[in-house]
Amino acid sequence: MGILEKVNYPEDIKRLSISELYELAEEIREFLLYNIANTGGHLAANLGVVELTLALLKVFDPPKDKIVWDVGHQCYVYKILTGRKQKFNTLRKFGGLSGFPKSKESIYDSFDTGHSSTSISVALGFAVARDLKNEDYDVIAVIGDGALTGGLAYEGLNNAGRYNGKLLVILNDNDMSISKNVGAIAKYLSKVRTKPRYFKLKKAADSLVEGIPIVGKNLSKFVRKVKGSLKYFFFPGTLFEALGFEYYGPIDGHDIERLCEVFKSVKDFERPVLVHVVTQKGKGYEHAERFPEKFHGVPPFDIETGNHLSDNTSKTFSEVLGDKLCELAKRNPKILAITAAMPDGTGLSRFAKMYPQRFFDVGIAEEHAVTFAGALAKEGFKPFVAIYSTFLQRAFDQIIHDVCLQNLNVVFCVDRAGLVGEDGETHHGSFDISYLSLIPNLTLMVPKDTKEFEMMLEFAAFYQDGPIAIRYPRGSCKQVGLYDEIKLSEPEILKEGVNLAIFSIGRHVSMLYDIISKNKLDATLVNVRFIKPLNTKIIKRIVNTHKKILIVEDNSIIGGLGEKIKSIIAEEKSVEIKHIAIPDRFIPHGSIFQLYSMLGMDRENLTKIVMELIES
Amino acid sequence: MGILEKVNYPEDIKRLSISELYELAEEIREFLLYNIANTGGHLAANLGVVELTLALLKVFDPPKDKIVWDVGHQCYVYKILTGRKQKFNTLRKFGGLSGFPKSKESIYDSFDTGHSSTSISVALGFAVARDLKNEDYDVIAVIGDGALTGGLAYEGLNNAGRYNGKLLVILNDNDMSISKNVGAIAKYLSKVRTKPRYFKLKKAADSLVEGIPIVGKNLSKFVRKVKGSLKYFFFPGTLFEALGFEYYGPIDGHDIERLCEVFKSVKDFERPVLVHVVTQKGKGYEHAERFPEKFHGVPPFDIETGNHLSDNTSKTFSEVLGDKLCELAKRNPKILAITAAMPDGTGLSRFAKMYPQRFFDVGIAEEHAVTFAGALAKEGFKPFVAIYSTFLQRAFDQIIHDVCLQNLNVVFCVDRAGLVGEDGETHHGSFDISYLSLIPNLTLMVPKDTKEFEMMLEFAAFYQDGPIAIRYPRGSCKQVGLYDEIKLSEPEILKEGVNLAIFSIGRHVSMLYDIISKNKLDATLVNVRFIKPLNTKIIKRIVNTHKKILIVEDNSIIGGLGEKIKSIIAEEKSVEIKHIAIPDRFIPHGSIFQLYSMLGMDRENLTKIVMELIES
Repeated sequence: MGILEKVNYPEDIKRLSISELYELAEEIREFLLYNIANTGGHLAANLGVVELTLALLKVFDPPKDKIVWDVGHQCYVYKILTGRKQKFNTLRKFGGLSGFPKSKESIYDSFDTGHSSTSISVALGFAVARDLKNEDYDVIAVIGDGALTGGLAYEGLNNAGRYNGKLLVILNDNDMSISKNVGAIAKYLSKVRTKPRYFKLKKAADSLVEGIPIVGKNLSKFVRKVKGSLKYFFFPGTLFEALGFEYYGPIDGHDIERLCEVFKSVKDFERPVLVHVVTQKGKGYEHAERFPEKFHGVPPFDIETGNHLSDNTSKTFSEVLGDKLCELAKRNPKILAITAAMPDGTGLSRFAKMYPQRFFDVGIAEEHAVTFAGALAKEGFKPFVAIYSTFLQRAFDQIIHDVCLQNLNVVFCVDRAGLVGEDGETHHGSFDISYLSLIPNLTLMVPKDTKEFEMMLEFAAFYQDGPIAIRYPRGSCKQVGLYDEIKLSEPEILKEGVNLAIFSIGRHVSMLYDIISKNKLDATLVNVRFIKPLNTKIIKRIVNTHKKILIVEDNSIIGGLGEKIKSIIAEEKSVEIKHIAIPDRFIPHGSIFQLYSMLGMDRENLTKIVMELIES
Repeated sequence: MGILEKVNYPEDIKRLSISELYELAEEIREFLLYNIANTGGHLAANLGVVELTLALLKVFDPPKDKIVWDVGHQCYVYKILTGRKQKFNTLRKFGGLSGFPKSKESIYDSFDTGHSSTSISVALGFAVARDLKNEDYDVIAVIGDGALTGGLAYEGLNNAGRYNGKLLVILNDNDMSISKNVGAIAKYLSKVRTKPRYFKLKKAADSLVEGIPIVGKNLSKFVRKVKGSLKYFFFPGTLFEALGFEYYGPIDGHDIERLCEVFKSVKDFERPVLVHVVTQKGKGYEHAERFPEKFHGVPPFDIETGNHLSDNTSKTFSEVLGDKLCELAKRNPKILAITAAMPDGTGLSRFAKMYPQRFFDVGIAEEHAVTFAGALAKEGFKPFVAIYSTFLQRAFDQIIHDVCLQNLNVVFCVDRAGLVGEDGETHHGSFDISYLSLIPNLTLMVPKDTKEFEMMLEFAAFYQDGPIAIRYPRGSCKQVGLYDEIKLSEPEILKEGVNLAIFSIGRHVSMLYDIISKNKLDATLVNVRFIKPLNTKIIKRIVNTHKKILIVEDNSIIGGLGEKIKSIIAEEKSVEIKHIAIPDRFIPHGSIFQLYSMLGMDRENLTKIVMELIES
């Protein structure tokens, strides 16, 4: 590794010639491949941005200049070249480098990311802050065409497009989200991408315009108008120009010289510029070029064969979803499946092939996924919406309004619930019980293992109406238990003992079952199954017959199962408690006074309650 | 009211001539004005869509055809003409008609709405459902240019644009959100809107193309290509065509004849069509035409003068925010203000005038508002983001990732918390304590009245770092109490008594204070102030010195203040309880095993805990 050995920081890149940069690019690819084969990680996206990252570091000066990587899983090359090469073998390991940008890890990471489509909004914030502080630096957002399917990216474009200062957006177009990209924009880009003549014509138009004398820094209004017209003539459907950006592209994202040239030429434009760069995901590693989806996020793998190394032989929850949903769909023609750019990750690829008419990949558009599902349900279908726990946070309002408010038959398959491991902070699904259980009308289930998960899917498909969410973890889980029939709100009591009662959910249930069995301990073990409706009656009975309670859950301590059970315990076993609040249903309109009165939150009723409490 | 008297259902419209429809339009305007002057409601938007609604009902057949009103506050004319004229005087009243579409109110309301930008996703869902069921009806989304600033609208367009069936989107362009519309799209639309020559040229191009013979129903590929090229030639920046829609417009939205003509002509297109209609918000009522913002959502008003009739003389929370923030901004140059299309509603109009460089109206784009604020905070500013409680649900993920995860100095001013009254189900801010209190790093305060609110704003501006949310209700509130200095996590103890302890927040505090004072009751009254960090120590002390507890809060019973206090009570005063869960902080990456072990959620530690519990 001749050149990479001497390269640690961006200033080292500045010294290299273009041909040395090409050599370095190859060395970086080897370095990435070698390391990620060991650690696992986001391989394909990073192989695709090697030259782009080198060109960025050749032209710009982070940390003064701020580079915002959208989603952030393509930041490995950047990490290697900004002081973190030595630590790269700790990637995604406990205590090691994060797989995403982290400002506490390095001053070169300008903003933490992890979820898609935030970069333009962040870059605009940085640019406005710079102006307010009268400072001078460049701000660059690097966003994939996949991330461009998310609504937030568009909100960012719409706001950035009317901004009057220096702001560069690089569209890293590889025709992929995590899987093949979808939607009208994808279609539009593929049209532009595959017609390099646009670019050539654009060049001709630009040089034509550039021949017109320019007074001062700014083009005269007339010249800009002419330039505009010419562009529109040559570039049908210039979406980004309609959104207020100067558009340059498409440019070969593996041509370092050309990239540097373009970056230098747009660097001083005092307006928002979008440079459209075409890259190949997985570039330089044959297996990843052929199967970029398989090499998006990989466990450790064999470099030679491309085979994933994984000791996991049992079926994962996602695989179970995929298989079971195919079966259910056969029996119930009303069942549909929806994913937000995750057909593989959520296990739905087989469903997509078997039922192409009943399968919808909406792109990285969780909000749309949920609202769209609501409308399908309103018309009599039963859509299963499979989205990872933290990504579903994006559709929180839509779950409330477009599904639960209308009590519609949508089943949310909340994958990657609880701790997910190597992806870390931004991907741990530790909030879902808290943010879902507060929504009226929703049924919320947690399977302890994949067999129970199948039973819950069956229950959701045939035996329960209204909105349902099932939250389940990454990977698989040991099977234990009785497999009592799933009945609404019924917990499964796996062990009966005296003093100690243990309430748990999800994969901790089998762990606790094992602990009790192997140590021959005397304890009651309850697999709660339904967080909502929670079976207050059974919980009360158990609480009243045991002296000690243990609650174990793979969710935040705030708003999870524990607080709900402890609330019941407090009301059952302690001082006299009254809790007046808005009940767990949607409240209609009326004056605030009328509503308070209806809910017993008005002065009159409160007076009565206070007096009764005092007098009792 | 000659014609309106005889009109109750869409079929009555079908019988009328165009000139009768114009008469009817005027009668409807009078009817709206007369009624809304009494009930209050969304006047201006409805005055703007009278002719549009009549044309829709002349051409289409709801409930078979499905009309989806985006946001829904412009559905009054539609309600009047779909069987609800007689009940219209009950609008927004308790037990009366809702101010938004409600499918349980009428089969003519195809989908419940209330929040912006959902209509295209809903319409696509309806269209796909129709195809799957092999049925035949029209689906029409009516969306304002304001709603088009929301990311979800774009996710809908991006997905609808690749759809191959019949789908009509009507862009109701009045250059307004609730206030003046903003962003690049708004700029783009204003360019298109003010150049009717585009439309004339388009007509010329179309007739040119229409001269080319067409075989069968479908244009030949060649013809469509030519037509496409011609269009692009004449219509620079056809944003919607890039997104896969056929675009028609702009059309005068008050020209019923022309509207009917266009709707009829596009009705049978087997592809997504966008018709761009230009309307005037407040049309026909002088005061509303001049001040559409003032007449967006109005309380009862005097028709003659346009003056709002309101018995509210004391300053509202929103007004206090506006005034106080101007003062704070003077003292602290780092303070910025951000609103999502609500400068008036959130009280920020004066700030916008005083500090135009430090004020940002981002459109109906809550996600962008929050991410943008995060970036500004990262660069050293202190943005105050004022958004209504239910709208902030849209930015749930961004609050977690782009602000709290990085512990950035953003202050969320959560307006319209708790019950809001007449806007009903979709607007009651009854979930915010539940969904905000689960987020690590966030400080969450609730002022009992406007004076305390000012103190909390001061505290947020100068004395507390990191993310802060202050949730406060619509309107104002009686002032009571001591006004103890605001100290992090410290509650305010307003009364000290023996047996009964009352914990409350927000405007119920003064109500309870009154109840206790007037009835000379012996009770302790705690104004909790900080939901997060909650003062466990003081709560424990009070719980241990009182026999009875009352908790009163204007938030859902699930995940609110009550569950938190009851959890403390359970641990303090009942059986022995242990609760093992993910702690209230962001968890880094590592293998799941390592993380479980770090958090005491692994087999080893659980075994130890279970054994200790059994043996204790």
